[in-house]
Amino acid sequence: MKLIGDERLDYLLAENLRIIQSPSVFAFSMDAVLLANFVYVPIQKGNLIDLCSGNGIIPLLLSRRTKGKITGVELQERLYDMAIRSLEYNKLTEQISMIHGDLKDMPEKLGYGKFDVLTCNPPYFTTPNEELFNKNPHYAIARHEIRCTLEDVISVSSQLIRAGGKVAFVHRPGRLLDIVTLMRKYKLEPKRMRLVYPKVGKEANTLLIEGIKLGKPDLKVLPPLYICEQNGDYTEEMSELLYGKR
Amino acid sequence: MKLIGDERLDYLLAENLRIIQSPSVFAFSMDAVLLANFVYVPIQKGNLIDLCSGNGIIPLLLSRRTKGKITGVELQERLYDMAIRSLEYNKLTEQISMIHGDLKDMPEKLGYGKFDVLTCNPPYFTTPNEELFNKNPHYAIARHEIRCTLEDVISVSSQLIRAGGKVAFVHRPGRLLDIVTLMRKYKLEPKRMRLVYPKVGKEANTLLIEGIKLGKPDLKVLPPLYICEQNGDYTEEMSELLYGKR
Repeated sequence: MKLIGDERLDYLLAENLRIIQSPSVFAFSMDAVLLANFVYVPIQKGNLIDLCSGNGIIPLLLSRRTKGKITGVELQERLYDMAIRSLEYNKLTEQISMIHGDLKDMPEKLGYGKFDVLTCNPPYFTTPNEELFNKNPHYAIARHEIRCTLEDVISVSSQLIRAGGKVAFVHRPGRLLDIVTLMRKYKLEPKRMRLVYPKVGKEANTLLIEGIKLGKPDLKVLPPLYICEQNGDYTEEMSELLYGKR
Repeated sequence: MKLIGDERLDYLLAENLRIIQSPSVFAFSMDAVLLANFVYVPIQKGNLIDLCSGNGIIPLLLSRRTKGKITGVELQERLYDMAIRSLEYNKLTEQISMIHGDLKDMPEKLGYGKFDVLTCNPPYFTTPNEELFNKNPHYAIARHEIRCTLEDVISVSSQLIRAGGKVAFVHRPGRLLDIVTLMRKYKLEPKRMRLVYPKVGKEANTLLIEGIKLGKPDLKVLPPLYICEQNGDYTEEMSELLYGKR
């Protein structure tokens, strides 16, 4: 097991897994954990794919919810390499394959309509901030729509997923309208939405949304998810996601 | 003060107002109360309009939040007549005017871009149920898109409101995507959204949304509103809306 530079082998406590992270290159966010737990997942089998996989956090977490095959796609070689080593460490190379490449090439490479479930925690920000870009290209590409736009993500998702298959995204509430407009444009009908609030009384800061390819219009809005209690502790629900049931 | 048939003169406790209702013709819903309290309202002046006013519940409630002029529009003469008598009873005929007519005629009749704030609690259901329609035409027209579609409501709203003016709607979460798609189509950019849940742990059953004519894209999702505690009592927030501060 080789760690490079400032990489750490962190625990995913709830799942009894470990994952390679690096403060200077990439560390997964809470949003990835939320998405991996929000998405519908078939338990016994299925063909799942995660776009913008980063260090492979979502495929790793999904492997604890399904026996299906999972594919992760990551553009940045440095992050792809971290994901590969985490898979090896966790002995998950049978169930999970990582692909180093551009998501826009995946429909041609992997086939149209071959997946049952797709997840993506895409870059959130439209305008790349040049200063940030210069400072840390790894974070800039992960966070800004430099190498793929939201429309690229949703268009590619629609091509990869089968009719009736499910796609789930995590994003900022401020982009809700862009997401749902694009999902409808690409025949991914939004069916389940959950808003995440930092604590009671605050505005939502994260949006979880799942659509069905060629689904019938009817959106359900699930109960809100609160991250913290008023005293700053994680809520029971968040604590279970992060550390498992006590 | 004349009451017709099974009409009652009900109290609006929080506002020290009274309103004429009739179980067989029309009684306002909680949704109207929620919308009247959700919408942005200028305190000292302004030109406000409420479409699909029914018995005038929203104009009555708005009169307690603003000194501006309020216009209510109602298609059904029987409901319009109830609204007029409630205005007279409450001595609000100076501040509120009711118009008996079709909302689709209002831009031509009242002028384009003349209003600062617009509210509407439109019919919720797309497919008129013929049995229901035959049973009670008053309720059928208020609840089903028989005389106006959601697109009519939003298109007319956009014509009536000035650039920078605010429009607010209440609807079912299942229609969220239709609403936001139509709002964008008619240049009413969604800016504030609040979801209403019957109680903790349940799916949302009501959606409040406000847009700005020609506004800049950036949706805020406000904290959730819960109607009831687990024991079935109103929450403190709902109780204040309905009965006023204790």
